[in-house]
Parts: sequence; C-alpha cells; structure tokens
Amino acid sequence: MSNPSLLILPGDGIGQEVMAEVRRVIDWFGAKRDMQFDVSEDLVGGAAYDKHGVPLHDDTMAKAQEVDAVLLGAVGGPAYDDLDFSVKPERGLLRLRKEMDLFANLRPAQCFDALSDFSSLKKELVAGLDIMIVRELTSGVYFGEPRGIHMEDNMRVGINTQRYTEAEIERGARAAFEMAMKRDKKLCSMEKANVMESGILWRDVVTEVHADYPEVELSHMYADNGAMQLVRAPKQFDVIYTDNLFGDILSDCAAMLTGSLGMLPSASLGAPMENGRPKAMYEPVHGSAPDIMGQGKANPIACILSFAMALRYSFDEGADATRLEAAIEKVLADGVRTGDLLSDENSTAVSTSGMTDAILEAL
Amino acid sequence: MSNPSLLILPGDGIGQEVMAEVRRVIDWFGAKRDMQFDVSEDLVGGAAYDKHGVPLHDDTMAKAQEVDAVLLGAVGGPAYDDLDFSVKPERGLLRLRKEMDLFANLRPAQCFDALSDFSSLKKELVAGLDIMIVRELTSGVYFGEPRGIHMEDNMRVGINTQRYTEAEIERGARAAFEMAMKRDKKLCSMEKANVMESGILWRDVVTEVHADYPEVELSHMYADNGAMQLVRAPKQFDVIYTDNLFGDILSDCAAMLTGSLGMLPSASLGAPMENGRPKAMYEPVHGSAPDIMGQGKANPIACILSFAMALRYSFDEGADATRLEAAIEKVLADGVRTGDLLSDENSTAVSTSGMTDAILEAL
Ligand SMILES: CC(C)[C@H](C(=O)O)[C@@H](O)C(=O)O
Ligand SMILES: CC(C)[C@H](C(=O)O)[C@@H](O)C(=O)O
Repeated sequence: MSNPSLLILPGDGIGQEVMAEVRRVIDWFGAKRDMQFDVSEDLVGGAAYDKHGVPLHDDTMAKAQEVDAVLLGAVGGPAYDDLDFSVKPERGLLRLRKEMDLFANLRPAQCFDALSDFSSLKKELVAGLDIMIVRELTSGVYFGEPRGIHMEDNMRVGINTQRYTEAEIERGARAAFEMAMKRDKKLCSMEKANVMESGILWRDVVTEVHADYPEVELSHMYADNGAMQLVRAPKQFDVIYTDNLFGDILSDCAAMLTGSLGMLPSASLGAPMENGRPKAMYEPVHGSAPDIMGQGKANPIACILSFAMALRYSFDEGADATRLEAAIEKVLADGVRTGDLLSDENSTAVSTSGMTDAILEAL
Repeated sequence: MSNPSLLILPGDGIGQEVMAEVRRVIDWFGAKRDMQFDVSEDLVGGAAYDKHGVPLHDDTMAKAQEVDAVLLGAVGGPAYDDLDFSVKPERGLLRLRKEMDLFANLRPAQCFDALSDFSSLKKELVAGLDIMIVRELTSGVYFGEPRGIHMEDNMRVGINTQRYTEAEIERGARAAFEMAMKRDKKLCSMEKANVMESGILWRDVVTEVHADYPEVELSHMYADNGAMQLVRAPKQFDVIYTDNLFGDILSDCAAMLTGSLGMLPSASLGAPMENGRPKAMYEPVHGSAPDIMGQGKANPIACILSFAMALRYSFDEGADATRLEAAIEKVLADGVRTGDLLSDENSTAVSTSGMTDAILEAL
C-alpha cells in the first residue's frame, strides 16, 4: 500500500514559517514512529498570484483533489490589498473549500491551562474552556448567486445572496451531531430565524436531524445572543453549529476568548473519498500576520495542532494526535513561550523553531 | 407652540415594566423642569398580535410617523415562538424601523465606573470603555429581496438577500462621521470586503465620504476581526460603523463587554422632519426577558437612558440628558442595584421601581 499523501500549501506571510515547522514534525513522525507520508508542496494565495497571476493554479487545485489531506498555512497580506476581488489571495482559499466540498469546518476553542491568564476574560470564565464550533463552509452568503456590484438608476448597488438548501444544512448538522456524540452531547445551533427565512429553514432542518440523535441535547439561539453568551459565559457551550458567515464571526470571537490566537487549529472536512478518508484541509485559525513575518516570532503551535487534527480525522491516528497535543501542553506548562504569549519570570522566550525544538523534545 | 409628542410602545415582557418607570421620569421632568410632553401609548409586538392579529396595527404605524419620538420597550416572548414569520412580534419592530426609515442606529457601549467589576473581561480592559456603534438599520439582509423559503428540485431552499445601494451606505456613513466629529474623531468601518462584493462597495463608499471629514481618522476592519478585537482590546475603538446584520452581532458583543445589558440604551434616527427634529425611536438594547417578567426585578436604567438619548437627539435638551445620566451614575456609585447587577455587602438591592425612586431622588 502506498503512503498517505499530504499537499502542503504554506501560502503567505508567517504561513511559510509555521509550515516549515510542521514539516519538521512530519519528519519526526517518519523517523521515530515510522509514519511515512508522501509530501508535496505548492503555492496558494498571494504567492500563487505572484507566480501565476491567480491565487490558485488549476494544477494545484487538481492535486488538492487527489491527496489524502491538504495542510494550508495562511493567505493574504498588504501587498495584495489592491488586487481585484476575483484574484485576491482569499479566492484561492475559498476555491479549495468549495471545489473540495469541505462543508464541515471544525474550530475548537480550547483554553490551555498554562495559558488561562492570557484571556481577556476573567480566569474563572475560561479555565477549562473546551468548545467545538462546527461551521458550514461551502454555502451561504460566501457563495450564493446573484452577487456583485452593478448600476441601478445611476447608482452602485452591492448584492450578495444568502442561500441554503436543506441538504446543505443537513449534512453539516449531521457532522455537528456526530461531534456532539463524541463529546458532551450538547449542541447549540445559531441563526437569525427571527429576521431571516434562511434561518427558519436552518432551525427546522437541524430540528429534524435531531430525531436521529435523541441523546444529544439540542438548543437554538439567535446569533447575536450567541455572540453575547460566548463573552458572558462561554463554558455553557459544548458543540455549536452555525452557518458560514455567522461561523466566521463567532469562531473568531470564541478563538479570542482563549487569549492565544496563535494556538488554534482547524479542520475542514468533506465527504469520504474512495479510500474511506474524508476530503480534508487543515489550517491554523490565525492569518498571515504580515507585521511579524520573517522575524522568527510566529507561534507554530496552531499549525502543528492542525497537523494533529489531520492525524486524528484523516489518518485514524488518534493516539498519536493526543500524544502530540500532550507534548504541546507539557511545553506550555514548562513555560516555553513564543512572543505572542506574554511571558513572566518563570517562562522561557523562544523563536518559532525553538518552540518546535521543545515540542519534539517533549514528544 | 404645542408640546412635543411622544408615542410609548411598551411591547412585551419587561418592556411594560421598564416603560412604566420611564413614564415616572417623564412626569418628573414635567413637574420639576416644566418640560411638558404629549404622551400617548399603544401596542406593539406580541401585545399587538393578541389584540389585532398583527404585531403592529396600521393606526399605530401612522401615529409613529406623526410623533416627535417613539419610545419602545421590547418585543417577543415564548408565547409567540410558534407564530408564522410574517406576524412574529419582531416584524412590528422591523416595520417601524423600515417605514420610519430610521437608518442610523446608535448603540453606545459604555462601562459605568461603578460596574466595571461586572464585565466578563478583566477590569483594566473595560474600565472607562466608551464605544459608539452606528449600525445601518433599514437595509441589508434584513430587508433585501428576493427572500423566503421555496422548493427547488423537491428540496426546501432558504434565501435572503444582502443588498446595499451607495446612497444607503453613504447616509449612515455621514451619521457615523458626524458622531466621530463630536467624539474622539476615530471611525472604524467593519465589513467582509474579502468575501462579499457588498462589503467592497461599503468600504469604497465609506472611503469616499471620508473626503468630507478629513479630521476623522478612518480605519477598515473585517467584521470577524472586529469581533475578535472587541474582545481583545475594546478601548481601541471610538465610533464603529457597520451594516445591519454585522451591527446586530457586534453591538451585542460590545454590549456584553460592559457586563450589564440592563444598562444599555439605543437611538434609531432617520431624516429630519418638517419641524427639524429627526424621525426617531428610542429603545433599550435588552429584550423582553420573559424569565424575570412580572417580578419587579427588571432594571429600568437602559430604558431611562434611552429617554435621556431622546432628550439629547430629539429635543435638544442635552444638558438635561447629561443631568439624568449623572443621576444614574450617582445612584450606581451609591451601590443601588437591581437583581441583574451582582451585589456585595456595600450595595443595596432594589426593585424596578426602587431604582427609579433612587434616580428621581438623585436628580
Ligand atoms: C480569509 C477569509 C476568506 C476567511 C473567511 O472569511 O472564511 C477567514 O476569515 C476564515 O475564517 O477562515
Ligand atoms: C429583535 C430583533 C429583530 C432585533 C434585530 O435583529 O435587529 C434585535 O436583535 C436588535 O438588535 O434590535
């Protein structure tokens, strides 16, 4: 049997730096645990635009469709701010999500014990926090038609369309209920059914799917109240299921609760492939961080934890994923810190690669 | 000259209780400061549905168009959860906003000194917090067509349309820039121009309007990052300008930062009427809170502060508005607390009307 395949798309800014560290982790698993991957690398985002004039080349898209998992760094940066909408770095990322049909975006918001002082929130509100946001990733206002800017009575009009079919809502809901079954069996669905018909359909379909998961306690919340409750008492949540746009905002809000954006991974999963593995892309939640790029300051943990998610969801190596996560927790407990994590007299400041050194050591 | 006119729409739940307290404040201004208002009262939301089968009667709508200001309590409650979308209590509120054309929704998020311990956030992050969110209130996905749930290939599809003309973006932007001029001259505009064309138009138009307000420092932020920054370091903001849906979520998030939702007022303003006053509706940010309704527990401050906003924006009585706000600050500093505000040994627990007693005493 051939080795599982990985396509690495470092992208822009610190994406390249953190991905270099992930390669070291992959190599470690090859050497020490005899877990061999066929790794290839390609361009996405601004880096792809610079070379090809598009943020994702068709060949790269084709490769992404074939591999067992894609690891993506980050896209964008000030150099690309004035590009036309159709070739913006983000379009490369959105094309991958859409054409790979990665409908279930898993975004854990977890507060690491050693870092619970970092949150903006009072420590007791976030200590032990462990939320999983399941964001629908391939539909909604991100992709709905009609869209664009056109003239009407001599005036510019900007239009986007929020559009959800029941099938789209349903498959994401199943992913969310499955996730809840593996966790605390609590699911909160968020929409704006009080002002949007698409939200009514969302609520109805989630309620219908609930019939197949009677053990899960389901609740519904308006998304504005959801944002509020995330700030007020985040520990009330276990799994949250929400749409593409609300998920974008609410997951950033939840991520910030943990106080350490450089720590948070994500997985975007689609339907099973022939080999039984889901179509999958893994990426850190943080962006390309142009302000700290090239200075060895980036925290590689979010990207390494994304690889841990790949071990768990794509390669059925849950035990090794847990081992990698535990090594990261130990390193943090030992006070090893990149620049994004405030340090005190008991902590040791390290560079991007120094953090990986410590993690590999702990493994 | 006839007295200025007020239409009071208490609505549902605690809306009725807090509005009763506002009437006492209005009476106080009549008796002690010779400020007479012609006050009428009518139904909205579930209360209107119970009587008329619609959440806002046409006669009430007509009255709202004629008065100098509308004061609204809150709408909705579990009794109305199963109503059809078209007659839900919220539709009454949305009809008022739309037909009165109240495009500029002002939502201050202010942290009262005496209450800075209440926030979920660490005290130093919120002490002295004073943000003004200007939310576009009459367009966007709340009102865009086409909308609804229809069948397509035997499947339900939910559709809503985000739609903004440049004129709609512009008039709200002017209100936001004017507000910034009266404050710290800093405006942050939030959208998702990286994924939505309507966001690109938003950013372009706000940038164009900026030419008329060169003294204001303008920045742009993606709305997901905005949610994150509100939690991370809210004091970086002065005025925020954003669309109807983002404004709904971001203002709830900002409101919760202050830790005391029972404290926050809002004003919704439209174009000037013949008498020079803007079309206006004032309402507390909190909802109808069915869980505490009828128990004398509701905090009337948000609603009383909304009346203070009416004094300032509709009746040019800024000095009296400030006086009323100062009385509320004093009462809080004295430790007077309704049940929504945690109390310690130095505070005095009071009922809804007890809070008003204390405020009138302090005036
Ligand atoms: C970069 C951008 C297109 C993307 C999104 O809006 O989905 C990002 O904010 C995210 O959350 O992954
Ligand atoms: C009650 C509801 C229709 C309303 C909204 O979504 O605008 C509320 O959340 C608000 O923010 O005023």
